Amino acid sequence: MKKIEHIGIAVKDIEASNELFASLFGKKHYKTEAVESEGVITSFFKNGPNKIELLQATTEDSPIAKFIEKKGEGIHHIAFAVADIEKEIERLKGEGFKMIHDKPKKGADNKLIAFLHPKATNGVLIELCQDIIK
Amino acid sequence: MKKIEHIGIAVKDIEASNELFASLFGKKHYKTEAVESEGVITSFFKNGPNKIELLQATTEDSPIAKFIEKKGEGIHHIAFAVADIEKEIERLKGEGFKMIHDKPKKGADNKLIAFLHPKATNGVLIELCQDIIK
Repeated sequence: MKKIEHIGIAVKDIEASNELFASLFGKKHYKTEAVESEGVITSFFKNGPNKIELLQATTEDSPIAKFIEKKGEGIHHIAFAVADIEKEIERLKGEGFKMIHDKPKKGADNKLIAFLHPKATNGVLIELCQDIIK
Repeated sequence: MKKIEHIGIAVKDIEASNELFASLFGKKHYKTEAVESEGVITSFFKNGPNKIELLQATTEDSPIAKFIEKKGEGIHHIAFAVADIEKEIERLKGEGFKMIHDKPKKGADNKLIAFLHPKATNGVLIELCQDIIK
């Protein structure tokens, strides 16, 4: 794993949170993106080599809606950049980790992504992501 | 804010978690450190420009013991690297953020640190940290 690619934060009102995090970081988000398959809209802030992704649910059965219902707003996941996501999934399965996604799928921000099961990682929801090279 | 300096993860058993995260990252933690004023022992892993800090409580009234009691194991805080922590505290107070620490204090890993109040930041506990130059 090469670095923290981003941290995902579940929020109730992405417009209000965009203003809040702009005040915090001293600069605005640089893009917004809807991921319909996950029922979320997202916005991204840059912090040097890392990003912060805000996530607001757009449907009642979105994973983000369920997360906020259970735990409230806050940090939802950590995403680590990997060079070869398929190889990394195989390595982690070999180490005994349980994957939510055994095969990478298309995520926000032009990435292939796969999540690990948080029960095996001290309650931390971890995403692997790899840039899609066009 | 220059980058994510580290993410702090609250764990119950730091030795077991050191093994778990070593399997996850494919490499071992590179140091451990006790912060007696906070009632914690910590261990650090590197991921490129970022670090992961595991935190285990050593006293019953440690903030980490209270966090785990309330929320279970998981992500405890995000720390951002800043160039001048006193200036950043003043800027954030000017933006209306509430600080837990109005003045920087000595933290783990040779840093000056200050925490923001999570009620003002979508439930995310945020730490500022600046390297102590010797």
